[in-house]
Amino acid sequence: MNPLKNRLVLGIDFGSTAVRVLTMAVESGETICTVEQAYEMGVEGVFTSAKKTLIARQSPEDYITSLQKVLKKAQEKNESLGFQMNQVVGIGVDTTGSTPLPITKNMMPLSSLPEFKGNLNAMAWMWKDHSAHKEAKEITDAIKEIRPHYLKKIGGAYSSEWFWAKIAHCHHVDKKVFQNAYTWLELSDFIPAILSGVKEAHLIKRNSCAAGHKALYNDEWNGFPDTDFITSLDPNLISVSKTLPPKTLSIEHICGHLCEKWSKGFGLSKGIPISMGILDAHAGAIGSGIKEGSLVKIIGTSTCDLVLGKLSGEHANIKGVASTAQESVLPKYYGIEAGQSAVGDLLNWYIKEVLNHHKNHQQLSLEASKLQAGESGLISLDWNNGNRSTLSDPLLSGLLIGQTLQTKDFEIYRALIEATAFGARRIIEAMESQGVVINEVVNCGGISHKNQLFMQIYADVINKPMKIAAGDETVALGAAIMGAKAAYIEAGTEITYNELQNKSCKMLEKVYLPQNKSVKTYDKLYKIYLNLHDSFGKKDHPNNLYNVMKDLIIIKTNNHE
Amino acid sequence: MNPLKNRLVLGIDFGSTAVRVLTMAVESGETICTVEQAYEMGVEGVFTSAKKTLIARQSPEDYITSLQKVLKKAQEKNESLGFQMNQVVGIGVDTTGSTPLPITKNMMPLSSLPEFKGNLNAMAWMWKDHSAHKEAKEITDAIKEIRPHYLKKIGGAYSSEWFWAKIAHCHHVDKKVFQNAYTWLELSDFIPAILSGVKEAHLIKRNSCAAGHKALYNDEWNGFPDTDFITSLDPNLISVSKTLPPKTLSIEHICGHLCEKWSKGFGLSKGIPISMGILDAHAGAIGSGIKEGSLVKIIGTSTCDLVLGKLSGEHANIKGVASTAQESVLPKYYGIEAGQSAVGDLLNWYIKEVLNHHKNHQQLSLEASKLQAGESGLISLDWNNGNRSTLSDPLLSGLLIGQTLQTKDFEIYRALIEATAFGARRIIEAMESQGVVINEVVNCGGISHKNQLFMQIYADVINKPMKIAAGDETVALGAAIMGAKAAYIEAGTEITYNELQNKSCKMLEKVYLPQNKSVKTYDKLYKIYLNLHDSFGKKDHPNNLYNVMKDLIIIKTNNHE
Repeated sequence: MNPLKNRLVLGIDFGSTAVRVLTMAVESGETICTVEQAYEMGVEGVFTSAKKTLIARQSPEDYITSLQKVLKKAQEKNESLGFQMNQVVGIGVDTTGSTPLPITKNMMPLSSLPEFKGNLNAMAWMWKDHSAHKEAKEITDAIKEIRPHYLKKIGGAYSSEWFWAKIAHCHHVDKKVFQNAYTWLELSDFIPAILSGVKEAHLIKRNSCAAGHKALYNDEWNGFPDTDFITSLDPNLISVSKTLPPKTLSIEHICGHLCEKWSKGFGLSKGIPISMGILDAHAGAIGSGIKEGSLVKIIGTSTCDLVLGKLSGEHANIKGVASTAQESVLPKYYGIEAGQSAVGDLLNWYIKEVLNHHKNHQQLSLEASKLQAGESGLISLDWNNGNRSTLSDPLLSGLLIGQTLQTKDFEIYRALIEATAFGARRIIEAMESQGVVINEVVNCGGISHKNQLFMQIYADVINKPMKIAAGDETVALGAAIMGAKAAYIEAGTEITYNELQNKSCKMLEKVYLPQNKSVKTYDKLYKIYLNLHDSFGKKDHPNNLYNVMKDLIIIKTNNHE
Repeated sequence: MNPLKNRLVLGIDFGSTAVRVLTMAVESGETICTVEQAYEMGVEGVFTSAKKTLIARQSPEDYITSLQKVLKKAQEKNESLGFQMNQVVGIGVDTTGSTPLPITKNMMPLSSLPEFKGNLNAMAWMWKDHSAHKEAKEITDAIKEIRPHYLKKIGGAYSSEWFWAKIAHCHHVDKKVFQNAYTWLELSDFIPAILSGVKEAHLIKRNSCAAGHKALYNDEWNGFPDTDFITSLDPNLISVSKTLPPKTLSIEHICGHLCEKWSKGFGLSKGIPISMGILDAHAGAIGSGIKEGSLVKIIGTSTCDLVLGKLSGEHANIKGVASTAQESVLPKYYGIEAGQSAVGDLLNWYIKEVLNHHKNHQQLSLEASKLQAGESGLISLDWNNGNRSTLSDPLLSGLLIGQTLQTKDFEIYRALIEATAFGARRIIEAMESQGVVINEVVNCGGISHKNQLFMQIYADVINKPMKIAAGDETVALGAAIMGAKAAYIEAGTEITYNELQNKSCKMLEKVYLPQNKSVKTYDKLYKIYLNLHDSFGKKDHPNNLYNVMKDLIIIKTNNHE
């Protein structure tokens, strides 16, 4: 008897504002249903600080409560469709990252302890938290001085969004939190560990994806950074460093098996396998059918670009992108990751904070779609949340040029979309210039389905056809594929990720093709974008403007102190 | 018997969107009443072109109709207050400018001829019309080559807003209009001529103010530009040039006396004196009590700065400001004029075109007033309508830097106010660096009364106390003072402008004083402003950004063709 016949798997996806669960039939690869639970604490799940605007935190208790609620919803939904949760034979988990949180020796998030209640530093430090920018610079400087070979893996600079910078910042600003943490771990390790019932923090397994892209893990230097390097940053960080395992594990490994606590309340079977975790963008790439030669763009509040590089060698080091890590997407490949810090967020910001929701995305897109490329006379940079690739600089900010007394709201909206497209082109050109072959661009995420103007602008600016992954939930689908692989492994049946993807991942028929006239105009505008990009973004540029955005932040920060 | 006892004068003020009439008691200098009539043709009185966005025209017929309506309103209002229009013994007129219009030999505006009905080129070319930017550049080039001494009077560049550029542009784009015009004249000459019943265009007197600031008139070179110079621009322009008189007249001269047509319908006495016209900003300076050492800022949709320079010599040439002209404000002084192309217009643009009137000036000002200087992290340039002073470049455009995903609508509003304040400081510093003494800044115009935040920012950025002229209608009051002077002249009674001003011009008690902490922060932001100003605005600047705004306009324009 086939042990996977009529069986299900779950993909659990912890996004920036909600957790989703996708149920998939293992053998057919068909999606059965998806349910979602929005986080309920903070503002749309996020805790910010009016005085320290770079802070973005989330509550681990909110994660746990939301996971309970969403699993209950999945149970109800599946039962309403005639399925039972005890048919589930594997679970895959993805989360945002780098989202480190401090925990005690016995796996308690610090924020759950009464003494740290409400302390933002004891919570999970969200990917978009840039409060550690000084520490990121210090780490980058230290790398340049004593471990220059690290640079090749991280696009030339360590980011304020990443693991070590955040932990170092916590030590600087909140020694009590730092001292009470046994270790820090990524949300993508925390959730699988919780589901597996791990009781002691030293037993936690760490996933290759988050460790490789965010925590300087690489087999080339035998794992996480060595003690001498960590000591050079801050001897106090050794207490965290020594809790990390010598090896990380890719998604091809099973993290653990579902514990009783997380099975019984939801009708799940105890002991089903849970794959190692992964970052959400990487799960999205899997769910979008990533293969050699595909660039997958996960377009959401921010954008993540993922390409597979040959593990054999030539793509081990792609400079000036963001990061490369072994087996961070699929086994036997480098995962090459780049990204833009604000894409959907940039448009949402404009509608919420500037237009006060007076118009919505549909209205503005419709009006903006009547414009030709270049017709607005505007150009914008896409740096309202800093630049992740290719400058790796969180202390950059937005710029808009060309407005007249006739400039309309929808023209600015279009200029913001174009700005993100120019940023996307910049990344692709950086990759291609280093020998990465990009045969196709596959887009996924809500915007790629909802906004035709957006996708056409991308096709015209990047001058490549834009394909769209069909499902609405490619990220959760990727997690479900990971759960399926775990189920196959447990059943002792061989199957490749490619075979699993071919069953589950579909493309929309609609492909956005570049339009010649717009391509030509955007080539001109892109030259202007590059000039501004380099003038304001590059320290060694002869123009004396590199300090403009930095000085504004200094003046702003001084005002808050 | 005192012929001016219980007598009235009228100040007629043709603004950008409406014409106003202020009635003043001659002897006391008290304002009796003010009435207003909005222009009714075009959009808020202005004709624009979607395809040629630099165009802004107004209809001469609209001016005439509006003048009739506003005089009727003045009659009704005065009668309701117990006054009769036959008590009026003098009229002063100011208008926007440079606002040239083409007319026939017998004083008919071309736009009134059936064959030119609806033709925008046959209308009045409003001050903010920048369609003649190429011609302005050609004129500047010609001046630099063969009449370099002209440059000293016009701030280094001839503006696309001015008389000769507009006429040359008309010849380039609409030969039929050009050929059918006997001459072109400023609105500030047209209105007094119409009221005086001038029947033939060769009899028109030209006022020193518009001619000196906009049409290259100067006694140093014996009047308007010579035939050789005009020929070098375009031999066709000679047909206009030869219609201009050898001498212009300051406001101390009477232009003519009220004709029957314009007296009888409104209860006015035929034959009362009408002073020579003046530009509206200059009337505003008079109505704000301008004297040696005062900088008067007329803050409206745009801003005009006026200072008196000694006619004797040292202030005859102030470089890089806008223009200097003999007796263009008060007799026996140079009028030194600078300005910013969009101030109120910049804020109105933001509220109308970006915010869709979702918030108004009061709301945004209230919210923005809670911010400290520098707290928004934003900086903006004030160039949405080009830069009049000190760069004299209409092909510059807006710029906003520093926005994050937290930036609020009111922070942008404040940044726009600050941008105009930085522009204002740039002008003052240019004047002071050339020996002009500025003991006080007197502000007038609606914004100076209505927006406390605006005035406080100006005090803090400019680091001088900001005084406010009391009346709401300082421009029309200035015109009325001119009418009063005409009445005194006609009566044979001596009086100085200063004496007239002392009776009529009051200051608000409220003076905005610089606040030390803000001054320091704005000093830092102003340095950044100057860096951006020079980088994007100066051709010879080492930064490679001078072409950014120009290239965007070229791309935009190509799109429209």
